[in-house]
Amino acid sequence: MMPPDLSSSKIGIFDSGFGGLTVMRSVMSALPNEHIVYFGDTARLPYGEKSADAILRYTVENIEFLLEHQIKLLIIACNTVCAIALDQVKERFSIPIIGMIEPAISKIKEVTQGGPIAVLGTRGTVRSGMYQQKISSILPKYPVVAIACPLFVSLVEEGYFEHPLVDIVVQEYLRPLKNNPVDTVLLACTHYPLLKSAIAKELGDSTVLIDPALGCADQAKAFLQKHTLLNPSSDPPRYTFFVSDDPEKFRLLGKTFLNYPIEHVHLKS
Amino acid sequence: MMPPDLSSSKIGIFDSGFGGLTVMRSVMSALPNEHIVYFGDTARLPYGEKSADAILRYTVENIEFLLEHQIKLLIIACNTVCAIALDQVKERFSIPIIGMIEPAISKIKEVTQGGPIAVLGTRGTVRSGMYQQKISSILPKYPVVAIACPLFVSLVEEGYFEHPLVDIVVQEYLRPLKNNPVDTVLLACTHYPLLKSAIAKELGDSTVLIDPALGCADQAKAFLQKHTLLNPSSDPPRYTFFVSDDPEKFRLLGKTFLNYPIEHVHLKS
Repeated sequence: MMPPDLSSSKIGIFDSGFGGLTVMRSVMSALPNEHIVYFGDTARLPYGEKSADAILRYTVENIEFLLEHQIKLLIIACNTVCAIALDQVKERFSIPIIGMIEPAISKIKEVTQGGPIAVLGTRGTVRSGMYQQKISSILPKYPVVAIACPLFVSLVEEGYFEHPLVDIVVQEYLRPLKNNPVDTVLLACTHYPLLKSAIAKELGDSTVLIDPALGCADQAKAFLQKHTLLNPSSDPPRYTFFVSDDPEKFRLLGKTFLNYPIEHVHLKS
Repeated sequence: MMPPDLSSSKIGIFDSGFGGLTVMRSVMSALPNEHIVYFGDTARLPYGEKSADAILRYTVENIEFLLEHQIKLLIIACNTVCAIALDQVKERFSIPIIGMIEPAISKIKEVTQGGPIAVLGTRGTVRSGMYQQKISSILPKYPVVAIACPLFVSLVEEGYFEHPLVDIVVQEYLRPLKNNPVDTVLLACTHYPLLKSAIAKELGDSTVLIDPALGCADQAKAFLQKHTLLNPSSDPPRYTFFVSDDPEKFRLLGKTFLNYPIEHVHLKS
C-alpha cells in the first residue's frame, strides 16, 4: 500500500498570539505555494512569564488542534514554547516539528566571529537556559549572555516600533552590553524583530542581529524538499487563521506582523 | 429554621492576577478580624486586553471556584471584570458581590469640584465605556475623559515603580491632560496605585487621585455591619491564596502588592 500523498496538505504554525506571524511571513516568502494554517492562542497569551507546566499543557492542546487540520509539518513559532516544551512534544507526537532554536543556533555559528553572543528573550526563555546551553554545546569557548526583555512584547503589541519610549526601554535592557560588547545578538522572541531598528541603533554596526524566523523558513523548505512534500500546485495558496480569543483584534493587529492582509480569522470553539 | 451563621465565613476576593492584592490590603486594614480567600487567575492574566466573551467566561469560573470556599461576601477586585461582566454575574449568582465601580463613583462625587474627570484603565475597561457612563449618569454636567494605559500593568509587574521609564510612559499616556487639566483622576486598574507617585508628579497638586480600593473596603465593612456578618472573633484571621499558575512567583511578587508576607500559595487544580 502506498502512503497517502501529503504534498498538498497544509503547514501548521502556532504561537501564543501574534508574534508567530513574523515566522509565517518568512515561510510564505520561502515557500510561496504552500497552504498554511495558523493558530494564535490569544485567550492565554502571553506565554513568556508563565510556568513550564502551563506552557507544556497549552502546547499539547494547540498541537492536537492543528492535527485536526491535516498538516504535513508543524512549526512552533514561539521561542518560549521551544525553549521549554519542544523536546517533550517531539517525543509525544509523530508529526515532524520544526522549532525556533536549532535554526537560530545554525545561524549564530555562521556569523559569529568569536562572540560574545547575546540572547534576548522573554523571562521564560531566558530562565529555561535552553539557548545558552545549546550555544555552549556547539560553540563551547564562546561567552554567552542572556537578557530577559519582557517589556518588548508589550511595546510591540501597543504598536510602538520607533518611538522615544522604545529607545529608552532598549537602552535600559541592553545596558549590560554597553561596556561588554557582543558580536552577535539572537532575537529569541518573535516580537523582537519588530524592534530591530531600535536595537541595531543602540548596539551599532559591529553587532549582527539574528532573526530566527529566516532560518526556520529555510529549514521548513529543506525538509519538504528532502521528503518530496512540496506542494506541486502553483495555484494561489490558502492561508487560514484561528485564534482562541478576539478574532477581530487579531485581524487588525496581525497585518502589521504578517505584512499581508488578513481577511478572515476563525474563533477556535 | 434559623439561617446558618455565616459571620465566621471568609470574604472571597478575585482578580486576574496580582493587582487585586492592593484591594485585599485595604480590606485587611478596614476589617482586621476577617478571614479572606484570594484567587488570582495567573494562568490567563492579563484580562485587560481580552474580549468581553472571554472575560465573562473566566469570571463565572472564578466565582464558582470561590463559592466552594464557603464565602459570605465576594469582592471582584478587577476593574476590567467589573466594567465588563459585573451586572451579568450579579444576576446569575446569589452571593452578595461588591465591585470596584460603585465605590469609585461615590468617591469621585465626594471630591470633584466640577471636573473634568479622567478615568485611567486598561483597554478593556476604557472600551467598555462603563465608567464614563456611570459617572455621566451621576454627574451629568461633568466632562469625562477616559485614557487606556496598557503599559502601566507591564511596568508594575516588572517592578518599575519609580524609574525614568515610568516617568516617560506616564508623560506619554497623560499628554492629553497637559493642556486640558482635570480635577479628579480615577485609577481604574488595581495596578495603577503602585504608580501613584509618578502620576501625581506629572499631574501636579491640583488633581486628586482616587484609588477605588479604599472605597471598596469601606463598602465591604458597611455591608457586613448592616447584615450582622462581621466576624465576632478577634483571633488572628486566616489568609488563603490560590492561583491558576506559578504559586512561587505569586508569593514573591505578591508581597509588594499586599505589603504583607505571603507564606503559602496553593495551585488551583
